[in-house]
Amino acid sequence: MNADTIWKDIKEIRGDAPLVHNITNFVVMEVTANALLAIGASPVMSHALEDVEDMVGIASSLVLNIGTLSEPWIEAMFRAGEAARRRGLRIVFDPVGSGATRYRTETSLRILEELQPAIIRGNASEIMSLVTSQTVTKGVDSRYGSDKAMDAAFRLTDKYRCVVSVSGAVDRIVFQNEIIKIANGHEMMPRVTGLGCAATALTGAFAAVDPSPFEAAAAAMAVMGIAGEIAAEKAQGPGSFRVRFIDALHAIGENDLRTRLQAATESR
Amino acid sequence: MNADTIWKDIKEIRGDAPLVHNITNFVVMEVTANALLAIGASPVMSHALEDVEDMVGIASSLVLNIGTLSEPWIEAMFRAGEAARRRGLRIVFDPVGSGATRYRTETSLRILEELQPAIIRGNASEIMSLVTSQTVTKGVDSRYGSDKAMDAAFRLTDKYRCVVSVSGAVDRIVFQNEIIKIANGHEMMPRVTGLGCAATALTGAFAAVDPSPFEAAAAAMAVMGIAGEIAAEKAQGPGSFRVRFIDALHAIGENDLRTRLQAATESR
Amino acid sequence: MNADTIWKDIKEIRGDAPLVHNITNFVVMEVTANALLAIGASPVMSHALEDVEDMVGIASSLVLNIGTLSEPWIEAMFRAGEAARRRGLRIVFDPVGSGATRYRTETSLRILEELQPAIIRGNASEIMSLVTSQTVTKGVDSRYGSDKAMDAAFRLTDKYRCVVSVSGAVDRIVFQNEIIKIANGHEMMPRVTGLGCAATALTGAFAAVDPSPFEAAAAAMAVMGIAGEIAAEKAQGPGSFRVRFIDALHAIGENDLRTRLQAATESR
Repeated sequence: MNADTIWKDIKEIRGDAPLVHNITNFVVMEVTANALLAIGASPVMSHALEDVEDMVGIASSLVLNIGTLSEPWIEAMFRAGEAARRRGLRIVFDPVGSGATRYRTETSLRILEELQPAIIRGNASEIMSLVTSQTVTKGVDSRYGSDKAMDAAFRLTDKYRCVVSVSGAVDRIVFQNEIIKIANGHEMMPRVTGLGCAATALTGAFAAVDPSPFEAAAAAMAVMGIAGEIAAEKAQGPGSFRVRFIDALHAIGENDLRTRLQAATESR
Repeated sequence: MNADTIWKDIKEIRGDAPLVHNITNFVVMEVTANALLAIGASPVMSHALEDVEDMVGIASSLVLNIGTLSEPWIEAMFRAGEAARRRGLRIVFDPVGSGATRYRTETSLRILEELQPAIIRGNASEIMSLVTSQTVTKGVDSRYGSDKAMDAAFRLTDKYRCVVSVSGAVDRIVFQNEIIKIANGHEMMPRVTGLGCAATALTGAFAAVDPSPFEAAAAAMAVMGIAGEIAAEKAQGPGSFRVRFIDALHAIGENDLRTRLQAATESR
Repeated sequence: MNADTIWKDIKEIRGDAPLVHNITNFVVMEVTANALLAIGASPVMSHALEDVEDMVGIASSLVLNIGTLSEPWIEAMFRAGEAARRRGLRIVFDPVGSGATRYRTETSLRILEELQPAIIRGNASEIMSLVTSQTVTKGVDSRYGSDKAMDAAFRLTDKYRCVVSVSGAVDRIVFQNEIIKIANGHEMMPRVTGLGCAATALTGAFAAVDPSPFEAAAAAMAVMGIAGEIAAEKAQGPGSFRVRFIDALHAIGENDLRTRLQAATESR
């Protein structure tokens, strides 16, 4: 992954406006939709059993996020997920708060087993919770840097043959034996609700256009981080940061990618 | 409709703060409520079967929006809608995503048949989907300009005796044999989630104070468009556009209407 | 309560990031979460019966808000509330729209009787509705200043041994025989949706760290009001006010409290 491949993806998103079907949590729906619109994708939210199969039928990717999960929503996630699998559509999964409660952890594991998402995207605590029964999280915020989750990420990529995208001060995206490290971003980002979930949604947009889910996941985190850096330059706090972040996603150009991208690839 | 009549409506909204009862989608609730507050109305959101009749009982208009529909919410829409009809309260209906899935199209048609909204407000794809079985939409974004929906709009106004308000680069509001065309607005507006839904909610506010639902529907679209133009002057992207749009709705004055309104009336 | 005690609370919130578990309404979830993050707390939203007990088990306080209530959410509020009582966790309750519909009033009274919140926080109309069967509200906006609700507030503190925090141009926080009056704030605040609900959520954050629920409730209102004043200095309307309000919560410092706090204590 480099600035050229990311730029190619962005141009494709802006040209095609891929429809990203989100079954996500109530807190972040607006910022998620605005982030997708800002990068050029077409967001849709739909969670009714009666609606999700048709919507998956016209979507380019499916994003599942359990941030405010409940039984009817989980049922809809499985129905949508099964429809996505039948169509060969990529599923991006965000295990929000996994590890904080048994319900979240167990639902996450069921989704991994039964729907086999192409990409899991979470913070270190959430990713670690998927391979251990230890409590590693507090609510929905991570206690650890992404480096601490590398053992868990490799176990997940081995077991589920999926990409594992771990956010943090340095984002680490894992697939098979490789790690892409992205050092872009800004410390204000965890102070704004929903930016992790927006990262997951953008991952859905990139996964709709990039042939490689590994590169798609890394490109999404790079774009998030670079937009965060641009936003931070003029922000005076998390309120104005959020506004400028959306502006930056919309304005991001080839030159921003070339001058700012801090990516490196490592082997296991 | 002209600047005077719109200004009269705005003064009445600001003076009376009509209570607009919204049963709407999760994505746009906040921006909808903020748009209603900014223009001077009093928004309320209520969707429980146990709650909606009492709330309709004190409301000045009812807005129904199926953007994240599900069975319990549809049931509540019908209960609220029937209570609104008994009270003679105007219903404004937004068929979000109609045409994208059968569930949305069928629910929209049931609402038209059984609740007879005073005003239908949607984009061209959504309006067209109400009179054809062809797929004309992708998710919740329109594929067409409002001119393409004029046949459908006239069929709907003939059949349901309602106003049909079609948004686009030029908004077209149809009733009986007339079209009001509003050329205000800005290309950034579809890049911000919920502005279409906010237009529907503002239509509810204007429908609460203007004797003519036709003029109310047109006034709401004119105010949306003019606030959008004002917002665009200082916005640096869709994030700051959204902020300035709310500021502009709050500040909009008689002079803005007089100098900016681009409205024309045509016959069928 | 004075600037010192408020500042001590803020430092503790910023140091410990207490987890505030919110079961709240759809309209305000994002601004609530962002307000909690801005002051330094860690917000979580969870409403599933299967999830709330575990989440309460790791939370530092519980906030219940009935703004978009429905049967499953009420059931979850009681399950979470009972778990909070077993743990000795403080419950902060916001009776949004109580008085507007029977369902809201009756649910509020059940919550008072069965869950015994440490703090009730509402506007004057809502607080008055809890002790009278007269209609005193229109939707979710108050018709009265906080002074009009003092009789009701004293009856509630006597009956339920709880703090009663009444927002208005002057906020009045009541406990036993005392009233703390906070004269900070700005007239723009009721023009932004969710700032009342954000006040309730911040009350939850302060109640997680301050030994006295009375001082916690007052500190939260003081911080809201002072952040509102700071925000108003540069805001151009309710859109930019909301952005700057979040910035101000994040930046608020000891000196802001010392120079701006307008608090006074009175006896019944």
